[in-house]
Amino acid sequence: MMPLDEPGWLPSLRLAIEIAATAAFALSGVLVAARKRLDAVGVCVAAFLTAFGGGTLRDLLLDHRPFFWIAQVDYVWGIMALSVAAMLFMRARHIAPTERLMRWPDTLGLGLFAAIGTDLAMAQGTPALLAVCLGVTTAVAGGVLRDVVCNDIPQALHDHRPYALCAFAGGWADVGLRQLDAPAWLPLVACLLVTVSLRFIALRWNWQLPAWKL
Amino acid sequence: MMPLDEPGWLPSLRLAIEIAATAAFALSGVLVAARKRLDAVGVCVAAFLTAFGGGTLRDLLLDHRPFFWIAQVDYVWGIMALSVAAMLFMRARHIAPTERLMRWPDTLGLGLFAAIGTDLAMAQGTPALLAVCLGVTTAVAGGVLRDVVCNDIPQALHDHRPYALCAFAGGWADVGLRQLDAPAWLPLVACLLVTVSLRFIALRWNWQLPAWKL
Amino acid sequence: MMPLDEPGWLPSLRLAIEIAATAAFALSGVLVAARKRLDAVGVCVAAFLTAFGGGTLRDLLLDHRPFFWIAQVDYVWGIMALSVAAMLFMRARHIAPTERLMRWPDTLGLGLFAAIGTDLAMAQGTPALLAVCLGVTTAVAGGVLRDVVCNDIPQALHDHRPYALCAFAGGWADVGLRQLDAPAWLPLVACLLVTVSLRFIALRWNWQLPAWKL
Repeated sequence: MMPLDEPGWLPSLRLAIEIAATAAFALSGVLVAARKRLDAVGVCVAAFLTAFGGGTLRDLLLDHRPFFWIAQVDYVWGIMALSVAAMLFMRARHIAPTERLMRWPDTLGLGLFAAIGTDLAMAQGTPALLAVCLGVTTAVAGGVLRDVVCNDIPQALHDHRPYALCAFAGGWADVGLRQLDAPAWLPLVACLLVTVSLRFIALRWNWQLPAWKL
Repeated sequence: MMPLDEPGWLPSLRLAIEIAATAAFALSGVLVAARKRLDAVGVCVAAFLTAFGGGTLRDLLLDHRPFFWIAQVDYVWGIMALSVAAMLFMRARHIAPTERLMRWPDTLGLGLFAAIGTDLAMAQGTPALLAVCLGVTTAVAGGVLRDVVCNDIPQALHDHRPYALCAFAGGWADVGLRQLDAPAWLPLVACLLVTVSLRFIALRWNWQLPAWKL
Repeated sequence: MMPLDEPGWLPSLRLAIEIAATAAFALSGVLVAARKRLDAVGVCVAAFLTAFGGGTLRDLLLDHRPFFWIAQVDYVWGIMALSVAAMLFMRARHIAPTERLMRWPDTLGLGLFAAIGTDLAMAQGTPALLAVCLGVTTAVAGGVLRDVVCNDIPQALHDHRPYALCAFAGGWADVGLRQLDAPAWLPLVACLLVTVSLRFIALRWNWQLPAWKL
């Protein structure tokens, strides 16, 4: 088998996804805060919780220090600017198009953050099932924290559309390729592809998680 | 005084209680999630939070690593299977008998987890009052997290029936026997006995925590 | 410039503020718990969460061990006594005067805890913006946790009166004076003064955080 070198454009693509996804996560916090009529402080806190909550919980649960945001002060400034800009310029008529626009970076972030979390956990020797769960936690916990603080039932646990489940499948793709000794960059790409295509298919054909016929 | 050797059946009994209690905690998460109409992902998350939340918070607050569930991947599979089985087979008419059945393992778990938490904290030289509080946290925080994520006021803080308070008394029995140089297994058994009998008496005679006559 | 020695009364003043503020934070937990009709256990838990939640989260996020309350068992007894005393003696007619009385120690605590958190973070080499945010978190997170557990939208994110924002300004005063090589005690005093005066002015002239005209 020919060696598969890491394509040169991969790190840039990864960074671009990370920035776009962090912005989409923060914006989703801003929108929930707006719907709940939080004040300016609440809008910023919701944006931070959504963008940083999952990665912080992952670092806590993996005992991984320093926390990832120590090296990302730029993101902190960026999220603040985004929150203020949203409060200044966003009006009711912008919400629906913004949400449509956010769908792609949000889904890409779901896959990317799940892969990063799974990889970090595997690197510490965590058993595969736990590593995948920690990956999903990385991707989803920010949104859960946002909804908890805003006093909603978390959307990711409630709306019967596959979201965390797509990241769960993606995480297993990542773990599987690692066990096959694939080149280092392949598991991440596979996790992204599986997560994003599943999510796309699920939304396109309106898949529903089984409701409990109690 | 004759030396009190650890009875040979004690480790098996402890393991049996641990498994039964973990299953009861997870099931209580499943039931709350069902009542709140969460989807399949939400049901699993509620089960995990209830079963693992208390121990994880204890490990965080005691800085005890690796987290206890790293060595318990079997429990993770078990809780997943339990959640799926409940969604497949449990119907409205099963809920009341299930809840009756869960009462005993749940109470045994309350005592066992309080004792484990208290012992871990004492072993690190934590002052007695804090050790007992951390023991109660170990036993109760999972249920509190479950209710917070499901957007309920936590039952353990709200239903005026003694629950955490029984574990608090049990924790002091544990700490007291430790200070009397009792053999290593006795404090755990005493904590279990005190917690379980208090909880039984409280439910039997319908004791109520004082309501605030504001 | 003449050296500015630390005034001899400063440590005592700092301790007095710390005790008064911890009591005020705990009492605010007690009052929210009472309004939500929690039981005796819930009242104590709300008091502890409000008083200790912010500092605990700060220690977690800065990886600072042992947790500050390990050295403060006296505070734990004190908060328990306060909770029980409130349940025994406080009646509906006492609530409004108690809340008026708590306003000052609460605001002083806001400034003090923000300064302590900011200083701890700066001492670990955290970038200034993050240090200030961690200071604000120290001061505000306890109240947020209290409201989350009591199933309210957090007051600090919702009531449109400047609270966290005053601590944010105070934190920047602290950081600024540190960069000017001011004597060690000056940044803390400056943070206190800025926070308290801003909060006083904001309440006096009824400043409102911008509401989002969506």
